[in-house]
Amino acid sequence: MSERPSPAGTGLTHIGASGEAHMVDVGGKAETVREAIAGGSVRMQAETLAMILAGNAKKGDVLSTARIAGIMAAKKAHELIPLCHPLLLTKVSVDIEPDHDLPGLRVQALARVTGKTGVEMEALTAASVACLTIYDMAKAVDRAMIISDIRLTSKTGGKSGDYKAEP
Amino acid sequence: MSERPSPAGTGLTHIGASGEAHMVDVGGKAETVREAIAGGSVRMQAETLAMILAGNAKKGDVLSTARIAGIMAAKKAHELIPLCHPLLLTKVSVDIEPDHDLPGLRVQALARVTGKTGVEMEALTAASVACLTIYDMAKAVDRAMIISDIRLTSKTGGKSGDYKAEP
Amino acid sequence: MSERPSPAGTGLTHIGASGEAHMVDVGGKAETVREAIAGGSVRMQAETLAMILAGNAKKGDVLSTARIAGIMAAKKAHELIPLCHPLLLTKVSVDIEPDHDLPGLRVQALARVTGKTGVEMEALTAASVACLTIYDMAKAVDRAMIISDIRLTSKTGGKSGDYKAEP
Amino acid sequence: MSERPSPAGTGLTHIGASGEAHMVDVGGKAETVREAIAGGSVRMQAETLAMILAGNAKKGDVLSTARIAGIMAAKKAHELIPLCHPLLLTKVSVDIEPDHDLPGLRVQALARVTGKTGVEMEALTAASVACLTIYDMAKAVDRAMIISDIRLTSKTGGKSGDYKAEP
Amino acid sequence: MSERPSPAGTGLTHIGASGEAHMVDVGGKAETVREAIAGGSVRMQAETLAMILAGNAKKGDVLSTARIAGIMAAKKAHELIPLCHPLLLTKVSVDIEPDHDLPGLRVQALARVTGKTGVEMEALTAASVACLTIYDMAKAVDRAMIISDIRLTSKTGGKSGDYKAEP
Amino acid sequence: MSERPSPAGTGLTHIGASGEAHMVDVGGKAETVREAIAGGSVRMQAETLAMILAGNAKKGDVLSTARIAGIMAAKKAHELIPLCHPLLLTKVSVDIEPDHDLPGLRVQALARVTGKTGVEMEALTAASVACLTIYDMAKAVDRAMIISDIRLTSKTGGKSGDYKAEP
Repeated sequence: MSERPSPAGTGLTHIGASGEAHMVDVGGKAETVREAIAGGSVRMQAETLAMILAGNAKKGDVLSTARIAGIMAAKKAHELIPLCHPLLLTKVSVDIEPDHDLPGLRVQALARVTGKTGVEMEALTAASVACLTIYDMAKAVDRAMIISDIRLTSKTGGKSGDYKAEP
Repeated sequence: MSERPSPAGTGLTHIGASGEAHMVDVGGKAETVREAIAGGSVRMQAETLAMILAGNAKKGDVLSTARIAGIMAAKKAHELIPLCHPLLLTKVSVDIEPDHDLPGLRVQALARVTGKTGVEMEALTAASVACLTIYDMAKAVDRAMIISDIRLTSKTGGKSGDYKAEP
Repeated sequence: MSERPSPAGTGLTHIGASGEAHMVDVGGKAETVREAIAGGSVRMQAETLAMILAGNAKKGDVLSTARIAGIMAAKKAHELIPLCHPLLLTKVSVDIEPDHDLPGLRVQALARVTGKTGVEMEALTAASVACLTIYDMAKAVDRAMIISDIRLTSKTGGKSGDYKAEP
Repeated sequence: MSERPSPAGTGLTHIGASGEAHMVDVGGKAETVREAIAGGSVRMQAETLAMILAGNAKKGDVLSTARIAGIMAAKKAHELIPLCHPLLLTKVSVDIEPDHDLPGLRVQALARVTGKTGVEMEALTAASVACLTIYDMAKAVDRAMIISDIRLTSKTGGKSGDYKAEP
Repeated sequence: MSERPSPAGTGLTHIGASGEAHMVDVGGKAETVREAIAGGSVRMQAETLAMILAGNAKKGDVLSTARIAGIMAAKKAHELIPLCHPLLLTKVSVDIEPDHDLPGLRVQALARVTGKTGVEMEALTAASVACLTIYDMAKAVDRAMIISDIRLTSKTGGKSGDYKAEP
Repeated sequence: MSERPSPAGTGLTHIGASGEAHMVDVGGKAETVREAIAGGSVRMQAETLAMILAGNAKKGDVLSTARIAGIMAAKKAHELIPLCHPLLLTKVSVDIEPDHDLPGLRVQALARVTGKTGVEMEALTAASVACLTIYDMAKAVDRAMIISDIRLTSKTGGKSGDYKAEP
């Protein structure tokens, strides 16, 4: 029950001394502004992209549904990821842009908090669920879409320092 | 409010005649056994993979936590994906295998139902959340991990016919 | 624990013989197609309505956010309403129209199921949460908005017969 | 991804520069005690009201179920309203009083927090779900009940100042 | 991914051939009426019991809150118990009786479904959460309360046959 | 709506002056580090225990599934217990040990927070759900398992002082 160091040689902070999973103690960490940006993409047929964008041009609903799904999912990250701490997100936004070379859509999700723990999982969850929602809304015309490049783009705040992904 | 055909030229079943999002009517579809298998991968440093597998060799907690997270997420797909129908999953399983060439972990999620609608989103959500959980549990040692290849591998049952992804 | 008739003189099906709340047994009811339509309105300043519609003309986000919130809330009705049965919604849609005489927005929500119990609460919950979302998104400019007329408009299917609200 | 001013002419804080929905940044707001009170009513047949009150006189379950549903819903406001921030409610209460002139029940919900953002949506959600629960529990005898007057009654704390609805 | 028999010598249906957890396939099971009754108790100081019952005599809120919490928790069993299947409960009820010899309260929860899988976990979850709610509401006066005897009392329906606990 | 003292003679802090349930105001309480440890046990046939431990020796999945279920449930305590405040858990862990004399498994759950309210319910909920998960995973071989001794073991922090259960 006591706080034990990670098992020798693993460095995995979620694994206790005898290997069992637990939510690590963040009680001693400082409350600072922390931000994370995550990216992701959905590769699809050029025709599928054109359909989504045409629909979007008229009413915007595929993209706006995916954006809202991503934002709402950020608030659920601690329910989905077993050892993720609950926190009070102060801002979430999801941007979706077409990439005709992919071809497909690129998603970028930002999460921000004033708290004791980072928001990487919130940003990554938002990006993932936005991509899944795009898949769901277009799957009737293209089952072969592939979600890729779900990754942390940057991170600021917190003791572990800032991080910026290589391009 | 009435059931209208998809807007001409889009073929997107979730978009109504005037473009607004709605949950499509599956009331007329037959109750059949439907199954979907989805895949995904987490690419990481070889050292990160070794650490996870060493931890796994001893207690198995990174992989078993990710498996359970994936299974539980499948049951939440309709809460995460706005236009996804609720359904009574009869089986969910998540397998995770190391791929030393990647290097990283490959996730495969299976969902099955006897119902009126397919389980692609449940399998894809399970695969995504299992990958996110792996990221969460190993991010302290490797922030640059990338989740990719979230895709539908195969699908059986339902009127739209079977589907098998190209390798 | 046994099924007892409602307490004499109340007719309230959720109250047991000695008055305690319980979820009524619908196990003996037939599986039929059941549909409910509910309405609601948000009364606001004419300027607020104009702002929402202008925003909508460009990107549609207030209305599409409210529509999606309503649809997602229909799937949560049994979590919100203590004695409401879970069910497998086959269709949900939410329409929002401006009413310049109100002035404000009118919401109409439709829920459909093939099941043993009606979907009134799902339609009413969708309408309510769509209205609450409109309030949330416009409250910075108009705190005095009022949500009214949340009511069942019509209902079909089930043993208790069809229902149509008086205009 | 950057914080942009609201689109010219809308004043809608949830809409970004190009119109897409996002959760506004409250990170810079001060942590103060904030309180909101919301009201709502359910209009019904005088006989329905008498039945509920008679049931209540004996065991109190319709009203206590609605009160509890409202309190629990306040804690879910950020899950229901897409762009609503999560927060740590310090108090929620729901009062329900009969109004024989309506005839029906009047609901009043109070939410309080020490935090960076207001609790209007929490109070309004509590009032709405309490009303929906009353509808659910009495609908077998009166389908024509109407939920109205869901509104913010008062609000204190926060930079935007206090608010008191006109009677 | 295929259905494998339980690992030799374990008989644990949730463990796959190589030991990993998965949700067992119930797709081949028949849809029948299934019912489970579970019990539980909260042992407390006689004075605590007297307080609760006195409060209950006037307004009934401790017991009715616990009953409602138990009913709502039954609907969440599949979200709480990782390998539990979602199902469409047709009835849930929770009874709470004082036992002056304990001294304390005895909880009995009934769950019923027409489905492919049993409702033991739903009844047990309802009983557990009703007991936890009693603890929460009375803990200010008695921290030493103990929840015990959470057990399956009886079970009917399904291929595995009926079950009745020994007294 | 105002804060009223508890009804004379009850001392139950969740009951308002006229007996109705409400979430008590913790806004005036200090933010301090608070910790609670709760215990619980599952009594079973010796053969059932041996099976679980044998399974565990190979892959650890019964115990690790129960641990994760307990941790995730701690984060849901405020959703399950009607009058429980939401809070930002900084640490949760669940330990499970065999007790061959019982025979069965003993669960210990720890919850910690820096906040205005205690974490007893989070620890008790974690212990309960870990026990329910053990029951679920082993019920195919032993329906007569009994969950007992769900109790608060110790509590530190907060104005009401520390608490240590008698052995």
